[in-house]
Amino acid sequence: MQSLIIMVTILGDNPTVDAKMVAENGVKKWQFGLNEALAVAGSLSIRGTLSKVISCVEEAGPKPMVSFGNGDPSLFPCFRTTPIAEDAIVEAVRSAKHNHYSPFVGLLPARRAVAEYLSKELPYKLSPDDVFLTSGCQQAAEVVMTALARPGANILIPRPGFPLYEARCVVHDLEIRRFNLIPEKEWEVDLDQVEQLADGNTVAIVLINPNNPCGNVYTYQHLEKIAKTARKLGIMVITDEVYGHIIFGNNPFVPMGVFGDIVPVITLGSISKRWVVPGWRLGWIVTTDPNGILKKTKVVDSIENYLAITSDPATFIQGAVPQIFEKTKDGFFSKIIHLLREDAETCFNKIKDIKCITCPHKPEGSMFVLVKLDLSCLEDINDDVDFCCKLAKEESVIICPGSALDMKNWLRITFAVEPATLDVGLERLKSFCQRHEKQSDK
Amino acid sequence: MQSLIIMVTILGDNPTVDAKMVAENGVKKWQFGLNEALAVAGSLSIRGTLSKVISCVEEAGPKPMVSFGNGDPSLFPCFRTTPIAEDAIVEAVRSAKHNHYSPFVGLLPARRAVAEYLSKELPYKLSPDDVFLTSGCQQAAEVVMTALARPGANILIPRPGFPLYEARCVVHDLEIRRFNLIPEKEWEVDLDQVEQLADGNTVAIVLINPNNPCGNVYTYQHLEKIAKTARKLGIMVITDEVYGHIIFGNNPFVPMGVFGDIVPVITLGSISKRWVVPGWRLGWIVTTDPNGILKKTKVVDSIENYLAITSDPATFIQGAVPQIFEKTKDGFFSKIIHLLREDAETCFNKIKDIKCITCPHKPEGSMFVLVKLDLSCLEDINDDVDFCCKLAKEESVIICPGSALDMKNWLRITFAVEPATLDVGLERLKSFCQRHEKQSDK
Repeated sequence: MQSLIIMVTILGDNPTVDAKMVAENGVKKWQFGLNEALAVAGSLSIRGTLSKVISCVEEAGPKPMVSFGNGDPSLFPCFRTTPIAEDAIVEAVRSAKHNHYSPFVGLLPARRAVAEYLSKELPYKLSPDDVFLTSGCQQAAEVVMTALARPGANILIPRPGFPLYEARCVVHDLEIRRFNLIPEKEWEVDLDQVEQLADGNTVAIVLINPNNPCGNVYTYQHLEKIAKTARKLGIMVITDEVYGHIIFGNNPFVPMGVFGDIVPVITLGSISKRWVVPGWRLGWIVTTDPNGILKKTKVVDSIENYLAITSDPATFIQGAVPQIFEKTKDGFFSKIIHLLREDAETCFNKIKDIKCITCPHKPEGSMFVLVKLDLSCLEDINDDVDFCCKLAKEESVIICPGSALDMKNWLRITFAVEPATLDVGLERLKSFCQRHEKQSDK
Repeated sequence: MQSLIIMVTILGDNPTVDAKMVAENGVKKWQFGLNEALAVAGSLSIRGTLSKVISCVEEAGPKPMVSFGNGDPSLFPCFRTTPIAEDAIVEAVRSAKHNHYSPFVGLLPARRAVAEYLSKELPYKLSPDDVFLTSGCQQAAEVVMTALARPGANILIPRPGFPLYEARCVVHDLEIRRFNLIPEKEWEVDLDQVEQLADGNTVAIVLINPNNPCGNVYTYQHLEKIAKTARKLGIMVITDEVYGHIIFGNNPFVPMGVFGDIVPVITLGSISKRWVVPGWRLGWIVTTDPNGILKKTKVVDSIENYLAITSDPATFIQGAVPQIFEKTKDGFFSKIIHLLREDAETCFNKIKDIKCITCPHKPEGSMFVLVKLDLSCLEDINDDVDFCCKLAKEESVIICPGSALDMKNWLRITFAVEPATLDVGLERLKSFCQRHEKQSDK
C-alpha cells in the first residue's frame, strides 16, 4: 500500500484523478514502452556489441585496455590530424560566419569542394548539386537507406558487411537480402548469388570499398562487373567509400562512380578516415550519376525530403571544408598510409603465428582484417562472442566478434593503432590462444 | 532510337545484357523511385515551406531580402555568440583530444554539465545518466518520436506546433492527434480536448515552452494541470524547451521537469537559442523523471537503441560544453534578452498599426509571434501562402505561412533580427498590406 499512499500525497489535491491512476497492485499503468524494432536494430550495431565486450574487461585488471574495436586511431599522437584541418576549423569558428543553421543540403562552398575533390578521379565532372552533406558517413547511410525504403522493396547487402546498413533497414522495413563475399577470391562479390537473390522489388546493392571488415580493395574489373550486373537487374549501386584512399596494397582505389555511366551510383564518404577525424562528423552523399537517372526517378527528391527533416553537420565544420581540401598536404596522407601499411604487415605476420586464427587475405586497405577462428583447436571457448569476452576479461584486449557482422566464428581486428600498442595487443592475443589451446594439440 | 544506340555503345562488350536493359521505348526500366511517405514528411518541414517562399523573391528585385523566417539571428553582429563559447570550441579542437568517435550517448563530462545546468531549476538532482546528447534539438525530437513509435500507438501534438514532430511521426507511422492551443487564453492547451483525444494507445503529449510559434510562456499552474492530465491518461510529457530562458514578459520560465514527480517528462533542449549558435548542433534529451518510470518501462532502452544507430554531435563540440556552461557570463544572456524584448515590443506595436493582421497575444518568450490574417480586408490574396509568396515577390520579405504549422491564414513572424532590419521589414509588410487593401475599405 505504500506506493498508493505516496501517490495520493503527491496529487492530494485531485482525488478523482488519483483513484484512476493507481492500478490494482498500487502501480500506475503507463501506456508507453519498448520499441521492439529498435531493440532489434540496436542489437545490430557494432557500438552495442563492442560495449558488451568492453563490459567483460575486469576493472581491477592489471593490464591497460588495448582496443582493436573501432576504426578510429585519432587518439594516438602518431595519427593526429593535420594542423591544416585544425586551423580551418578555428578560422571558421572565429569568423562567426557559420553559427547559423545550415541549408539542409549543406553549405554551397563545401558542396562544391566535395564535388571537385571527387571529380578528380572520375571521367566526368560532378556539380555541387550532386553533393549532400551529412553528419558523417553514418548519417549518409541512414539517409540513403531511408530514402529507398518503399513498401515491398528489398536491398542487397554484403555478408560480411557493416551492420549499420541492416539496422537502418530494420527501422524502415526495407527487406534485407544478404549476398556473400568470397574469402578465397579476395572477398569478391558472389555475383551469381546476387543475380539469384534479386527480383522485381530489389532497388539497390550495397558495396563497401575499401572493404570494412575484410580489408580488401576491389579491382577495376570486378567493380565493372558489379556495375553491369546491377544495370542488368535494374538496381542502383550504393558504394560506401569512407575508406577511400586508405590503401596500401597492390590494387589502386577505383571509385565506383567511374561506372556511373553504366549504372546510377550513390557514393557515401566522409573526411573521418583520411583526415583521422571521425568525431568531426562531416560526410556526404554524392550522386555519381552522369545520366541523371536518380533525379529522373525521384530518388534525389527522397534524399532531399529526408534531409529536410533530419539534423545537419555543424555549419562551421562545413565552413572549414574548402580549406581542408585545398590546403592539406600530400605528406600528411602518405604519413598516415605508411603507418597503416606497417600496421597491416605486423598484424598479418603476427596472426600467421597464432595457431587457431587464420587470415584468408592480407589486408590492403581500410583499417581492418577479418580472420577465421578455428574452434576445434581451442578448449573452453564456445564461439566468437565467448572468445572476445574471455579475451577482454583475461587480457583486456577488445576485438569485435564476427557475429556482429553476421560472420559467426570470425573476428574483425582493427590494426589502425599505434605500432607499440599493436604489438602488445597481438602478443596478448597470442598468449590467450596458447593458453586456451586444446591439450591434445599442444 | 537514339538512346538505344547510346546504351549499346556504352556497354558494347556485353550484348546479352544490353538487350534486357532497354525497355520497349528505348528507356531502361529502373526499379527504384520516390518514397511517398518521405514526400509527405518533407512537405511538412518549415525548411521546405520557407524555401518555396524564398523562391518567390525576384532575383533582380531592388530590395535586399529581409527574413522573418527562421529563429536564427546568429548572422547579425548584435546577436553574435559570446567569445567564451568560441574560445571553448577552439580549445577543444586544439587539444586534439576530441577527434574520436563519441560514445553514442555523448561524452560524460558534457552530459554531467547538462545535468548540472538543468538541475539548478529542478526540485531534484539529475544524473549524467539522465542526459543523452544529440545533434541539436532537431535530432532530439527525431530520436524521441522514433523511440515512441510502436505499432498502433498515437501521440498528442499541439496545433499550432512545430511541424518537425509531425514529419517524424509520418516517417515512423506514429498516429498524430492534434489538440488546440487557445489564442484567447494566452495559447493555453485545450485540456478538455486532450482528454477527449487520448485513448488506450496514446503514449505522449508534446509541449513547446516557451512556445514556438505562439511566443507565449506557460504558467506554473497551467503546466501543473498538463502534468496531472497526462498522469491521469497514463501518458508521458515531451517538452521542447529549446527556447528555455528566452523570456521577456511577466511569466517566469518553469521547466516541465519540475513536475517530473507527477508524470515522467522527457525534456528536449540545446545550446542553439540561448547561445545563438543553432549551427553548432548540440542538443539533448533529458529524462526528468525522478521515479525512474522511463527506465522501468524501457523507453530509455528505446532511446539508447536508436542513438546506437544514428549519428552524434561532433565530439569536440561536446568537449567544449562544460566550459561553455561554466564560463558564460550572465551579462551575455541579459544582453540577448534585452535585444529580444525590444524586438518583441517593436513587432507587437507595429503590427497593431497594420489593418489586416491581428496579434492575439503579445510575445513574451521564444523568437516568434503568431498573427491572424484577415483576408476579408485584402484583395487579390487567396490565403496565407499566397500572401507570403506575394510579399516575398513584391517586398523581398520572408514570413512563414501558418499553413506550415497547420494554422491556415495565420502568419509566423520571427522578430529575432537586428532592430534596424526589423523596422525595415515591418514597414514593407505594412505598405504591402496597404497596397493590397480592398478599395472599399480604404
